Amino acid sequence: MEILKKMILEHGTVRGNNIVMVDSFLNHKLDISLLNEIGKEFYERFKHKNINKILTIEASGIAIAAITAQYFNVDVVFAKKTISTNLDDNTYESKVYSFTKNETYTVRVAKKFLDKEDKILIIDDFLANGKALEGLIDIIDQANAKIEGIGIVIEKGFQDGGKLIRDRGFNLESLVIIDDIKSNKVVFRN
Amino acid sequence: MEILKKMILEHGTVRGNNIVMVDSFLNHKLDISLLNEIGKEFYERFKHKNINKILTIEASGIAIAAITAQYFNVDVVFAKKTISTNLDDNTYESKVYSFTKNETYTVRVAKKFLDKEDKILIIDDFLANGKALEGLIDIIDQANAKIEGIGIVIEKGFQDGGKLIRDRGFNLESLVIIDDIKSNKVVFRN
Repeated sequence: MEILKKMILEHGTVRGNNIVMVDSFLNHKLDISLLNEIGKEFYERFKHKNINKILTIEASGIAIAAITAQYFNVDVVFAKKTISTNLDDNTYESKVYSFTKNETYTVRVAKKFLDKEDKILIIDDFLANGKALEGLIDIIDQANAKIEGIGIVIEKGFQDGGKLIRDRGFNLESLVIIDDIKSNKVVFRN
Repeated sequence: MEILKKMILEHGTVRGNNIVMVDSFLNHKLDISLLNEIGKEFYERFKHKNINKILTIEASGIAIAAITAQYFNVDVVFAKKTISTNLDDNTYESKVYSFTKNETYTVRVAKKFLDKEDKILIIDDFLANGKALEGLIDIIDQANAKIEGIGIVIEKGFQDGGKLIRDRGFNLESLVIIDDIKSNKVVFRN
């Protein structure tokens, strides 16, 4: 997705050998015009699937999922990372290990919002080690719902999450794949 | 906003004397058609203001702010409740006390995303005691930016946040105000 590559090259910043900061348009300040282009692109890639719900995870996935959902004309459910008064007690849960924080957290979705008839598109901003994504897949499996596709905005191709997910047979589409970060420069996969 | 009152009456659930669960359409599962109506309504109420940015707070405010921003043709910044690798080190910060969790947390916005020229619309899902909102106002004040308006989806009129904010002279618009919860029934302000 050329406009996204352009945004990453022009407005992304590299930290070390691993982190690409896209806080100026994707996960802190949100460029809504870009999110609309991202939503259209996900629709183009998954419109042939019979999707009735989008699942994402708080917080960075929410805006992308909500904007994308407009093109599919479906609702969104976002998995929660903390217990709060507005979360039902009856939840599907999965443990997720975070490499960046070196800790395990629990993601939760109220059982009433996932149904075995659901045909789900998972949406998230980043795919690196794939741990958060595996948590969402686990939750959907617990609900006996179907995963029709997985849409990722930025995949870090030099980490193994993408390979692991594709090897399991999932229809994973990443809008851009970063294969390397060299001398503070992002190298995209063609 | 009649469609919102209808959704709360038909799909909201009351917990005790204080909590209205709207997790089936506003803050866990997201009814995107309703969010579009909410966005249009915020636009009608604030379109005469010269707004160039929407500020909200993770996680429940994000989807509402992102959908609403499409009608204003502006970008969104969401305040963060946790430090993460995708947060710049140089931030405005404010302490927020949570009555429901009985703890104080810190909200943060990267300084580079707030400017003294900004004319800001604050958007959030709920207003009760107003502590989170006061944190956002404090952060905007630190940036010397201007608050053009505050748009809240559901105000709990039986708690004092709305009065405190209006007494400070802010242009606060709540799409519905709940004045009481009696015998498990929501009573709206006319």
